Amino acid sequence: MVSKSEIKLITGLDQKKYRKRHGIFVAEGVKVITELIDAGMNLRELYTTDTDCFPAALSCTREISEQELKKISRLKTPNKALALFEIPAEKEIKNSGLVLVLDDIRDPGNLGTIIRLCDWFGVDQLVCSATTVDCYNAKVVQASMGSLARVNVVYRELENYIQESELPVFTADMNGENVYDSHLPEQGILVMGNEANGISDKIRSLSHKILSIPRFGYMQQTESLNVATATAVLLSEFRRRGN
Amino acid sequence: MVSKSEIKLITGLDQKKYRKRHGIFVAEGVKVITELIDAGMNLRELYTTDTDCFPAALSCTREISEQELKKISRLKTPNKALALFEIPAEKEIKNSGLVLVLDDIRDPGNLGTIIRLCDWFGVDQLVCSATTVDCYNAKVVQASMGSLARVNVVYRELENYIQESELPVFTADMNGENVYDSHLPEQGILVMGNEANGISDKIRSLSHKILSIPRFGYMQQTESLNVATATAVLLSEFRRRGN
Repeated sequence: MVSKSEIKLITGLDQKKYRKRHGIFVAEGVKVITELIDAGMNLRELYTTDTDCFPAALSCTREISEQELKKISRLKTPNKALALFEIPAEKEIKNSGLVLVLDDIRDPGNLGTIIRLCDWFGVDQLVCSATTVDCYNAKVVQASMGSLARVNVVYRELENYIQESELPVFTADMNGENVYDSHLPEQGILVMGNEANGISDKIRSLSHKILSIPRFGYMQQTESLNVATATAVLLSEFRRRGN
Repeated sequence: MVSKSEIKLITGLDQKKYRKRHGIFVAEGVKVITELIDAGMNLRELYTTDTDCFPAALSCTREISEQELKKISRLKTPNKALALFEIPAEKEIKNSGLVLVLDDIRDPGNLGTIIRLCDWFGVDQLVCSATTVDCYNAKVVQASMGSLARVNVVYRELENYIQESELPVFTADMNGENVYDSHLPEQGILVMGNEANGISDKIRSLSHKILSIPRFGYMQQTESLNVATATAVLLSEFRRRGN
Protein backbone atom coordinates (compact mmCIF):
# COMPACT_ATOMS: atom_id res chain seq x y z
CA MET A 1 0.00 0.00 0.00
CA VAL A 2 1.13 3.49 -0.83
CA SER A 3 -0.85 6.06 1.15
CA LYS A 4 -2.21 9.27 -0.30
CA SER A 5 0.19 11.32 1.79
CA GLU A 6 3.12 9.29 0.45
CA ILE A 7 1.98 9.86 -3.13
CA LYS A 8 1.74 13.57 -2.38
CA LEU A 9 5.21 13.61 -0.79
CA ILE A 10 6.85 11.68 -3.64
CA THR A 11 5.29 13.58 -6.52
CA GLY A 12 6.09 16.84 -4.69
CA LEU A 13 9.78 15.92 -4.87
CA ASP A 14 9.65 17.05 -8.51
CA GLN A 15 10.21 20.46 -7.02
CA LYS A 16 13.57 21.51 -5.68
CA LYS A 17 12.08 23.34 -2.68
CA TYR A 18 10.42 20.12 -1.46
CA ARG A 19 13.57 18.09 -2.03
CA LYS A 20 15.42 20.64 0.06
CA ARG A 21 12.77 20.76 2.78
CA HIS A 22 12.66 16.96 3.17
CA GLY A 23 16.32 16.30 2.37
CA ILE A 24 15.48 13.50 -0.04
CA PHE A 25 15.47 12.83 -3.77
CA VAL A 26 13.89 10.27 -6.09
CA ALA A 27 15.59 7.65 -8.24
CA GLU A 28 13.75 5.27 -10.56
CA GLY A 29 14.55 1.93 -12.13
CA VAL A 30 16.44 -1.12 -10.91
CA LYS A 31 19.77 -0.19 -12.48
CA VAL A 32 19.98 3.39 -11.19
CA ILE A 33 18.78 2.47 -7.69
CA THR A 34 21.22 -0.44 -7.44
CA GLU A 35 24.11 1.78 -8.58
CA LEU A 36 23.25 4.45 -6.01
CA ILE A 37 23.00 1.89 -3.18
CA ASP A 38 26.31 0.31 -4.23
CA ALA A 39 27.92 3.75 -4.37
CA GLY A 40 26.94 4.34 -0.75
CA MET A 41 23.95 6.68 -0.96
CA ASN A 42 21.64 6.37 2.05
CA LEU A 43 18.39 4.69 1.06
CA ARG A 44 15.34 5.98 2.91
CA GLU A 45 12.56 4.01 1.20
CA LEU A 46 12.37 1.52 -1.66
CA TYR A 47 9.08 0.82 -3.45
CA THR A 48 9.23 -2.11 -5.85
CA THR A 49 6.95 -4.46 -7.74
CA ASP A 50 9.65 -7.15 -7.69
CA THR A 51 11.64 -7.61 -4.49
CA ASP A 52 13.84 -10.22 -6.23
CA CYS A 53 15.55 -7.37 -8.08
CA PHE A 54 17.11 -6.25 -4.80
CA PRO A 55 18.71 -9.38 -3.39
CA ALA A 56 20.23 -7.80 -0.28
CA ALA A 57 16.81 -7.72 1.42
CA LEU A 58 16.70 -4.15 2.69
CA SER A 59 14.61 -3.32 5.69
CA CYS A 60 13.13 -0.30 3.94
CA THR A 61 11.83 -2.30 0.97
CA ARG A 62 8.10 -2.06 0.31
CA GLU A 63 6.43 -4.36 -2.20
CA ILE A 64 3.79 -2.50 -4.21
CA SER A 65 1.56 -3.17 -7.22
CA GLU A 66 2.17 -1.99 -10.79
CA GLN A 67 -0.74 0.41 -10.39
CA GLU A 68 0.71 1.91 -7.23
CA LEU A 69 4.08 2.33 -8.93
CA LYS A 70 2.38 4.18 -11.79
CA LYS A 71 0.91 6.61 -9.28
CA ILE A 72 4.27 7.62 -7.84
CA SER A 73 6.42 7.30 -10.99
CA ARG A 74 7.31 10.09 -13.39
CA LEU A 75 8.40 7.70 -16.14
CA LYS A 76 6.15 6.79 -19.05
CA THR A 77 7.12 3.16 -18.53
CA PRO A 78 8.02 2.71 -14.85
CA ASN A 79 10.78 0.16 -14.37
CA LYS A 80 9.90 -1.98 -11.34
CA ALA A 81 11.12 0.35 -8.61
CA LEU A 82 11.23 3.86 -7.18
CA ALA A 83 13.50 4.82 -4.29
CA LEU A 84 13.92 7.76 -1.97
CA PHE A 85 17.51 8.58 -1.03
CA GLU A 86 18.88 11.10 1.46
CA ILE A 87 20.55 14.15 -0.05
CA PRO A 88 24.09 13.88 1.37
CA ALA A 89 25.52 16.70 3.48
CA GLU A 90 27.60 19.08 1.40
CA LYS A 91 31.31 18.35 1.45
CA GLU A 92 33.99 21.01 1.33
CA ILE A 93 35.26 21.99 -2.11
CA LYS A 94 38.46 20.22 -3.02
CA ASN A 95 40.61 22.94 -4.54
CA SER A 96 43.23 20.83 -6.25
CA GLY A 97 43.56 18.74 -9.37
CA LEU A 98 41.13 19.43 -12.18
CA VAL A 99 37.88 21.15 -11.12
CA LEU A 100 34.96 21.43 -13.53
CA VAL A 101 32.79 24.56 -13.26
CA LEU A 102 29.37 24.89 -14.92
CA ASP A 103 28.03 28.35 -15.65
CA ASP A 104 24.27 28.11 -16.08
CA ILE A 105 23.68 24.62 -17.51
CA ARG A 106 19.92 24.26 -17.81
CA ASP A 107 19.27 20.87 -19.36
CA PRO A 108 19.04 18.01 -16.81
CA GLY A 109 20.25 15.44 -19.37
CA ASN A 110 23.37 17.53 -20.01
CA LEU A 111 24.16 17.85 -16.30
CA GLY A 112 23.63 14.11 -15.76
CA THR A 113 25.93 13.24 -18.67
CA ILE A 114 28.56 15.69 -17.40
CA ILE A 115 28.51 14.17 -13.88
CA ARG A 116 29.10 10.76 -15.49
CA LEU A 117 31.96 12.22 -17.55
CA CYS A 118 33.56 13.68 -14.40
CA ASP A 119 33.44 10.26 -12.79
CA TRP A 120 35.03 8.60 -15.85
CA PHE A 121 37.78 11.17 -16.18
CA GLY A 122 38.53 11.29 -12.46
CA VAL A 123 37.25 14.81 -11.83
CA ASP A 124 35.75 14.59 -8.35
CA GLN A 125 34.86 18.24 -7.88
CA LEU A 126 32.06 19.93 -9.84
CA VAL A 127 31.14 23.54 -8.97
CA CYS A 128 27.88 24.85 -10.47
CA SER A 129 26.40 28.34 -10.67
CA ALA A 130 23.19 28.80 -8.68
CA THR A 131 21.35 29.01 -12.03
CA THR A 132 22.48 25.52 -13.05
CA VAL A 133 19.82 22.80 -12.84
CA ASP A 134 19.69 20.98 -9.46
CA CYS A 135 21.69 17.74 -9.45
CA TYR A 136 18.91 15.94 -7.53
CA ASN A 137 16.38 16.69 -10.27
CA ALA A 138 14.96 13.28 -11.30
CA LYS A 139 16.24 13.53 -14.89
CA VAL A 140 19.75 14.37 -13.70
CA VAL A 141 19.66 11.37 -11.38
CA GLN A 142 18.56 9.09 -14.25
CA ALA A 143 21.36 10.30 -16.52
CA SER A 144 24.18 10.39 -13.96
CA MET A 145 23.40 7.10 -12.20
CA GLY A 146 25.93 5.98 -9.58
CA SER A 147 28.31 8.76 -10.57
CA LEU A 148 26.17 11.19 -8.58
CA ALA A 149 27.46 9.52 -5.41
CA ARG A 150 31.12 9.78 -6.43
CA VAL A 151 31.36 13.34 -7.72
CA ASN A 152 31.12 16.22 -5.22
CA VAL A 153 28.58 18.63 -6.75
CA VAL A 154 28.22 22.03 -5.06
CA TYR A 155 26.41 25.25 -6.02
CA ARG A 156 28.23 28.57 -5.63
CA GLU A 157 28.35 32.17 -6.75
CA LEU A 158 30.94 31.54 -9.47
CA GLU A 159 32.74 34.87 -9.54
CA ASN A 160 33.57 34.59 -5.84
CA TYR A 161 34.57 30.97 -6.14
CA ILE A 162 36.87 31.58 -9.10
CA GLN A 163 38.44 34.68 -7.55
CA GLU A 164 39.15 32.92 -4.26
CA SER A 165 40.52 29.77 -5.84
CA GLU A 166 44.16 29.99 -6.80
CA LEU A 167 43.92 27.60 -9.71
CA PRO A 168 44.43 28.74 -13.32
CA VAL A 169 41.10 29.20 -15.14
CA PHE A 170 40.39 27.69 -18.57
CA THR A 171 37.15 28.53 -20.32
CA ALA A 172 35.59 26.76 -23.29
CA ASP A 173 34.30 29.01 -26.04
CA MET A 174 34.41 29.70 -29.77
CA ASN A 175 37.41 31.59 -31.14
CA GLY A 176 39.81 30.51 -28.42
CA GLU A 177 43.14 28.73 -28.60
CA ASN A 178 43.12 25.35 -30.38
CA VAL A 179 42.90 22.89 -27.46
CA TYR A 180 45.01 20.30 -29.30
CA ASP A 181 47.97 22.68 -29.27
CA SER A 182 47.44 24.16 -25.78
CA HIS A 183 49.53 23.49 -22.72
CA LEU A 184 47.10 22.07 -20.17
CA PRO A 185 48.31 21.67 -16.57
CA GLU A 186 47.21 18.92 -14.20
CA GLN A 187 45.72 21.46 -11.79
CA GLY A 188 43.13 23.94 -12.97
CA ILE A 189 39.55 25.01 -13.37
CA LEU A 190 37.68 24.28 -16.60
CA VAL A 191 34.52 26.38 -17.10
CA MET A 192 31.72 25.30 -19.46
CA GLY A 193 28.95 27.78 -20.30
CA ASN A 194 25.23 27.88 -20.97
CA GLU A 195 23.75 25.79 -23.81
CA ALA A 196 22.49 28.78 -25.80
CA ASN A 197 24.58 31.74 -24.66
CA GLY A 198 27.94 30.24 -23.75
CA ILE A 199 30.11 31.92 -21.15
CA SER A 200 29.09 35.16 -19.42
CA ASP A 201 31.33 38.20 -19.88
CA LYS A 202 32.21 38.26 -16.19
CA ILE A 203 33.51 34.72 -16.23
CA ARG A 204 35.36 35.36 -19.48
CA SER A 205 37.18 38.28 -17.88
CA LEU A 206 38.39 36.00 -15.06
CA SER A 207 39.79 33.39 -17.47
CA HIS A 208 43.49 32.85 -18.05
CA LYS A 209 42.91 31.04 -21.32
CA ILE A 210 39.99 30.44 -23.71
CA LEU A 211 40.03 26.97 -25.26
CA SER A 212 38.30 25.91 -28.47
CA ILE A 213 37.71 22.56 -30.13
CA PRO A 214 38.54 23.04 -33.82
CA ARG A 215 35.72 22.49 -36.29
CA PHE A 216 36.61 20.11 -39.12
CA GLY A 217 33.40 20.08 -41.19
CA TYR A 218 34.23 21.45 -44.65
CA MET A 219 30.96 23.33 -44.74
CA GLN A 220 31.71 24.91 -41.38
CA GLN A 221 28.05 25.46 -40.61
CA THR A 222 27.50 23.51 -37.42
CA GLU A 223 26.73 26.15 -34.89
CA SER A 224 28.24 24.54 -31.85
CA LEU A 225 28.84 21.26 -30.13
CA ASN A 226 26.41 20.18 -27.45
CA VAL A 227 27.88 21.19 -24.06
CA ALA A 228 28.12 17.60 -22.81
CA THR A 229 30.01 16.40 -25.88
CA ALA A 230 32.30 19.44 -25.75
CA THR A 231 33.00 18.64 -22.08
CA ALA A 232 33.86 15.07 -23.09
CA VAL A 233 36.44 16.25 -25.62
CA LEU A 234 38.01 18.81 -23.26
CA LEU A 235 38.26 16.49 -20.23
CA SER A 236 39.81 13.91 -22.54
CA GLU A 237 42.37 16.50 -23.67
CA PHE A 238 43.28 17.45 -20.08
CA ARG A 239 43.67 13.81 -19.10
CA ARG A 240 45.59 12.44 -22.08
CA ARG A 241 48.46 14.86 -21.40
CA GLY A 242 49.22 13.08 -18.14
CA ASN A 243 48.39 9.68 -19.65
CA MET B 1 -7.09 26.07 -40.51
CA VAL B 2 -5.60 22.64 -40.09
CA SER B 3 -7.99 19.97 -41.39
CA LYS B 4 -8.68 16.68 -39.63
CA SER B 5 -6.97 14.75 -42.39
CA GLU B 6 -3.85 16.92 -42.00
CA ILE B 7 -3.78 16.30 -38.24
CA LYS B 8 -4.07 12.59 -38.93
CA LEU B 9 -1.29 12.71 -41.51
CA ILE B 10 1.08 14.71 -39.30
CA THR B 11 0.58 12.76 -36.09
CA GLY B 12 0.91 9.55 -38.12
CA LEU B 13 4.44 10.62 -39.10
CA ASP B 14 5.50 9.51 -35.61
CA GLN B 15 5.72 6.12 -37.24
CA LYS B 16 8.54 5.23 -39.57
CA LYS B 17 6.27 3.34 -41.99
CA TYR B 18 4.16 6.45 -42.59
CA ARG B 19 7.26 8.64 -42.99
CA LYS B 20 8.48 6.16 -45.59
CA ARG B 21 5.12 5.93 -47.35
CA HIS B 22 4.71 9.70 -47.64
CA GLY B 23 8.41 10.54 -48.01
CA ILE B 24 8.23 13.30 -45.42
CA PHE B 25 9.36 13.99 -41.87
CA VAL B 26 8.46 16.48 -39.14
CA ALA B 27 10.63 19.19 -37.60
CA GLU B 28 9.49 21.48 -34.80
CA GLY B 29 10.59 24.87 -33.52
CA VAL B 30 11.85 28.00 -35.24
CA LYS B 31 15.56 27.22 -34.81
CA VAL B 32 15.50 23.66 -36.13
CA ILE B 33 13.22 24.51 -39.06
CA THR B 34 15.34 27.53 -40.03
CA GLU B 35 18.53 25.47 -39.89
CA LEU B 36 17.03 22.74 -42.09
CA ILE B 37 15.79 25.27 -44.67
CA ASP B 38 19.20 27.00 -44.69
CA ALA B 39 20.93 23.65 -45.11
CA GLY B 40 18.90 23.00 -48.25
CA MET B 41 16.24 20.53 -47.11
CA ASN B 42 13.08 20.71 -49.26
CA LEU B 43 10.23 22.23 -47.27
CA ARG B 44 6.83 20.79 -48.10
CA GLU B 45 4.63 22.63 -45.59
CA LEU B 46 5.23 25.13 -42.79
CA TYR B 47 2.64 25.67 -40.04
CA THR B 48 3.38 28.61 -37.78
CA THR B 49 1.69 30.85 -35.24
CA ASP B 50 4.11 33.67 -36.10
CA THR B 51 5.00 34.21 -39.76
CA ASP B 52 7.49 36.94 -38.76
CA CYS B 53 9.84 34.18 -37.56
CA PHE B 54 10.34 33.13 -41.17
CA PRO B 55 11.26 36.34 -42.98
CA ALA B 56 11.80 34.82 -46.42
CA ALA B 57 8.02 34.57 -46.99
CA LEU B 58 7.69 31.00 -48.16
CA SER B 59 4.81 30.03 -50.42
CA CYS B 60 4.09 26.96 -48.33
CA THR B 61 3.71 28.92 -45.07
CA ARG B 62 0.39 28.49 -43.27
CA GLU B 63 -0.51 30.72 -40.35
CA ILE B 64 -2.30 28.75 -37.65
CA SER B 65 -3.52 29.32 -34.08
CA GLU B 66 -1.76 28.18 -30.89
CA GLN B 67 -4.53 25.63 -30.39
CA GLU B 68 -4.08 24.19 -33.86
CA LEU B 69 -0.34 23.95 -33.31
CA LYS B 70 -0.98 22.02 -30.09
CA LYS B 71 -3.05 19.51 -32.03
CA ILE B 72 -0.25 18.66 -34.47
CA SER B 73 2.76 19.10 -32.15
CA ARG B 74 4.47 16.36 -30.18
CA LEU B 75 6.26 18.80 -27.87
CA LYS B 76 4.98 19.61 -24.39
CA THR B 77 5.58 23.29 -25.14
CA PRO B 78 5.25 23.78 -28.91
CA ASN B 79 7.61 26.44 -30.20
CA LYS B 80 5.72 28.54 -32.77
CA ALA B 81 6.15 26.26 -35.79
CA LEU B 82 5.98 22.76 -37.21
CA ALA B 83 7.26 21.89 -40.66
CA LEU B 84 7.08 18.97 -43.04
CA PHE B 85 10.22 18.32 -45.07
CA GLU B 86 10.86 15.86 -47.88
CA ILE B 87 13.06 12.91 -47.00
CA PRO B 88 15.97 13.33 -49.44
CA ALA B 89 16.79 10.56 -51.92
CA GLU B 90 19.53 8.27 -50.62
CA LYS B 91 23.00 9.17 -51.83
CA GLU B 92 25.68 6.63 -52.57
CA ILE B 93 28.02 5.74 -49.71
CA LYS B 94 31.28 7.66 -49.83
CA ASN B 95 33.90 5.05 -49.09
CA SER B 96 36.83 7.29 -48.26
CA GLY B 97 38.01 9.44 -45.37
CA LEU B 98 36.63 8.66 -41.96
CA VAL B 99 33.30 6.77 -41.96
CA LEU B 100 31.29 6.36 -38.75
CA VAL B 101 29.31 3.13 -38.36
CA LEU B 102 26.59 2.65 -35.73
CA ASP B 103 25.72 -0.88 -34.66
CA ASP B 104 22.26 -0.82 -33.08
CA ILE B 105 22.00 2.65 -31.50
CA ARG B 106 18.48 2.82 -30.04
CA ASP B 107 18.21 6.20 -28.33
CA PRO B 108 17.06 9.03 -30.66
CA GLY B 109 18.87 11.66 -28.57
CA ASN B 110 22.14 9.74 -28.94
CA LEU B 111 21.75 9.43 -32.73
CA GLY B 112 20.90 13.14 -33.05
CA THR B 113 23.94 14.12 -30.99
CA ILE B 114 26.16 11.80 -33.03
CA ILE B 115 24.94 13.30 -36.34
CA ARG B 116 25.85 16.75 -34.99
CA LEU B 117 29.26 15.45 -33.92
CA CYS B 118 29.87 14.04 -37.42
CA ASP B 119 29.08 17.44 -38.89
CA TRP B 120 31.48 19.18 -36.46
CA PHE B 121 34.33 16.76 -37.03
CA GLY B 122 33.90 16.65 -40.81
CA VAL B 123 32.62 13.07 -41.04
CA ASP B 124 30.11 13.20 -43.87
CA GLN B 125 29.27 9.51 -44.07
CA LEU B 126 27.32 7.69 -41.34
CA VAL B 127 26.36 4.04 -41.93
CA CYS B 128 23.79 2.59 -39.49
CA SER B 129 22.61 -0.97 -38.88
CA ALA B 130 18.95 -1.58 -39.77
CA THR B 131 18.27 -1.87 -36.03
CA THR B 132 19.50 1.68 -35.35
CA VAL B 133 16.77 4.27 -34.72
CA ASP B 134 15.51 6.06 -37.86
CA CYS B 135 17.25 9.39 -38.45
CA TYR B 136 13.94 11.04 -39.40
CA ASN B 137 12.43 10.20 -36.01
CA ALA B 138 11.24 13.54 -34.55
CA LYS B 139 13.59 13.36 -31.55
CA VAL B 140 16.59 12.68 -33.78
CA VAL B 141 15.64 15.67 -35.92
CA GLN B 142 15.38 17.91 -32.83
CA ALA B 143 18.80 16.84 -31.56
CA SER B 144 20.69 16.86 -34.88
CA MET B 145 19.25 20.11 -36.28
CA GLY B 146 20.77 21.35 -39.55
CA SER B 147 23.47 18.67 -39.37
CA LEU B 148 20.93 16.14 -40.62
CA ALA B 149 21.08 17.85 -44.02
CA ARG B 150 24.89 17.78 -44.20
CA VAL B 151 25.69 14.24 -43.08
CA ASN B 152 24.81 11.34 -45.40
CA VAL B 153 22.99 8.80 -43.18
CA VAL B 154 22.28 5.38 -44.71
CA TYR B 155 21.03 2.08 -43.27
CA ARG B 156 22.78 -1.15 -44.25
CA GLU B 157 23.41 -4.74 -43.25
CA LEU B 158 26.70 -3.96 -41.46
CA GLU B 159 28.59 -7.20 -42.00
CA ASN B 160 28.21 -6.91 -45.76
CA TYR B 161 29.07 -3.24 -45.76
CA ILE B 162 32.21 -3.72 -43.67
CA GLN B 163 33.39 -6.73 -45.66
CA GLU B 164 32.92 -4.95 -48.99
CA SER B 165 34.56 -1.73 -47.88
CA GLU B 166 38.32 -1.78 -48.10
CA LEU B 167 38.90 0.61 -45.22
CA PRO B 168 40.57 -0.47 -41.96
CA VAL B 169 38.00 -1.09 -39.22
CA PHE B 170 38.30 0.41 -35.72
CA THR B 171 35.83 -0.59 -33.05
CA ALA B 172 35.20 1.13 -29.73
CA ASP B 173 34.94 -1.16 -26.74
CA MET B 174 36.25 -1.82 -23.25
CA ASN B 175 39.62 -3.57 -22.89
CA GLY B 176 41.00 -2.38 -26.21
CA GLU B 177 44.12 -0.42 -27.06
CA ASN B 178 44.48 2.97 -25.33
CA VAL B 179 43.25 5.38 -28.01
CA TYR B 180 45.70 8.09 -26.89
CA ASP B 181 48.62 5.84 -27.87
CA SER B 182 47.11 4.34 -31.03
CA HIS B 183 48.09 5.06 -34.59
CA LEU B 184 44.92 6.35 -36.25
CA PRO B 185 44.92 6.79 -40.04
CA GLU B 186 43.01 9.47 -41.94
CA GLN B 187 40.97 6.86 -43.77
CA GLY B 188 39.00 4.25 -41.88
CA ILE B 189 35.78 3.02 -40.38
CA LEU B 190 34.98 3.67 -36.71
CA VAL B 191 32.24 1.41 -35.29
CA MET B 192 30.25 2.37 -32.17
CA GLY B 193 28.01 -0.24 -30.53
CA ASN B 194 24.69 -0.52 -28.73
CA GLU B 195 24.06 1.52 -25.55
CA ALA B 196 23.64 -1.52 -23.30
CA ASN B 197 25.40 -4.39 -25.06
CA GLY B 198 28.25 -2.73 -26.95
CA ILE B 199 29.57 -4.31 -30.12
CA SER B 200 28.22 -7.61 -31.47
CA ASP B 201 30.64 -10.55 -31.77
CA LYS B 202 30.33 -10.59 -35.56
CA ILE B 203 31.42 -6.98 -35.88
CA ARG B 204 34.21 -7.51 -33.37
CA SER B 205 35.59 -10.35 -35.48
CA LEU B 206 35.73 -8.02 -38.51
CA SER B 207 37.69 -5.31 -36.64
CA HIS B 208 41.34 -4.59 -37.23
CA LYS B 209 41.72 -2.79 -33.93
CA ILE B 210 39.70 -2.33 -30.74
CA LEU B 211 40.03 1.16 -29.24
CA SER B 212 39.34 2.15 -25.63
CA ILE B 213 39.14 5.48 -23.84
CA PRO B 214 41.10 5.08 -20.59
CA ARG B 215 39.17 5.52 -17.38
CA PHE B 216 40.76 7.95 -14.94
CA GLY B 217 38.35 7.84 -12.00
CA TYR B 218 40.28 6.52 -9.01
CA MET B 219 37.30 4.49 -7.89
CA GLN B 220 37.04 2.92 -11.33
CA GLN B 221 33.37 2.19 -10.91
CA THR B 222 31.75 4.08 -13.76
CA GLU B 223 30.35 1.37 -15.94
CA SER B 224 30.77 3.04 -19.30
CA LEU B 225 30.66 6.34 -21.08
CA ASN B 226 27.45 7.27 -22.86
CA VAL B 227 27.86 6.31 -26.54
CA ALA B 228 27.51 9.91 -27.77
CA THR B 229 30.22 11.23 -25.43
CA ALA B 230 32.49 8.30 -26.30
CA THR B 231 31.97 9.10 -30.00
CA ALA B 232 32.93 12.73 -29.26
CA VAL B 233 36.24 11.68 -27.68
CA LEU B 234 37.11 9.19 -30.44
CA LEU B 235 36.28 11.50 -33.37
CA SER B 236 38.35 14.18 -31.63
CA GLU B 237 41.26 11.73 -31.39
CA PHE B 238 41.05 10.79 -35.08
CA ARG B 239 40.95 14.44 -36.12
CA ARG B 240 43.62 15.94 -33.89
CA ARG B 241 46.27 13.64 -35.44
CA GLY B 242 45.88 15.42 -38.77
CA ASN B 243 45.37 18.78 -37.05
